[in-house]
Amino acid sequence: MTNPTFRRARRADLEAIVDMLVDDYIGAKREDGSRPLNAKYVAAFEAVARDENQYLAVVEDEGEIVGCLQLSFIPGIARLGMWRGQIEGVRIKSTRRGEGLGHKMFDWAIAECRAKGCEMVQLAMDKTRTDTLRFYESLGFKASHEGMKLGLTGK
Amino acid sequence: MTNPTFRRARRADLEAIVDMLVDDYIGAKREDGSRPLNAKYVAAFEAVARDENQYLAVVEDEGEIVGCLQLSFIPGIARLGMWRGQIEGVRIKSTRRGEGLGHKMFDWAIAECRAKGCEMVQLAMDKTRTDTLRFYESLGFKASHEGMKLGLTGK
Repeated sequence: MTNPTFRRARRADLEAIVDMLVDDYIGAKREDGSRPLNAKYVAAFEAVARDENQYLAVVEDEGEIVGCLQLSFIPGIARLGMWRGQIEGVRIKSTRRGEGLGHKMFDWAIAECRAKGCEMVQLAMDKTRTDTLRFYESLGFKASHEGMKLGLTGK
Repeated sequence: MTNPTFRRARRADLEAIVDMLVDDYIGAKREDGSRPLNAKYVAAFEAVARDENQYLAVVEDEGEIVGCLQLSFIPGIARLGMWRGQIEGVRIKSTRRGEGLGHKMFDWAIAECRAKGCEMVQLAMDKTRTDTLRFYESLGFKASHEGMKLGLTGK
């Protein structure tokens, strides 16, 4: 591992982000790695960029995109008006897994949430990713909630 | 049950919303029902109102606030740039529980998410709310994910 840096994703990073989403055993079934990029990804990138409470981040190492994640900063009334930081879409380039990059990404993400004033960080982990539960627990996350999903597309 | 209506929460509804948050077996431990309202709730209300991807809704029935919930519309790159609708802070006035209001609220919330273009609705349910799991499952939600939480305040 060299010295990975974190920054906000730019439009020019989107191909690399989509490639990481495709290169995942769950993502392979539902993403589209074709070129030119599926217009849905471009529209989504623009929606994320427009919303100041969304932070799509990439991890760069020696000029290469090696990881990505999305932070959502969510204001709410409950728990004395607590802000939540939500982490979604964490991916690491397959050739760079097992080097501790995930830990660095979460340390960075949690620090960003703290800096934004969030008092809680949350995420929903697919229960079939059994290997990642222990990883999250090692970071201090508790599996205190059921992550309930309802698809609206009939798929 | 009369004919409940749904609308965006106004500042004048905030006391009633906080009262519903307090009147909950989990909320009782962590909310503050004092008057004047804790300034943290007012700041949170303003943050929610400023963010066009947040929709704090109240349910009104015969001039009384009988329920509330918050929708967060979250853009993202994954799943072909799918928008998610997230439901948080669902509360029903204690005197109005058991009338089917919850079902009406979720029907409304899911329709709002659909209208906004969301292809998935998600929420995280505290595992100690065992009575509500069946309710969500009856709406079609699947407990496919672990809802992981990390507190940042040391509490």
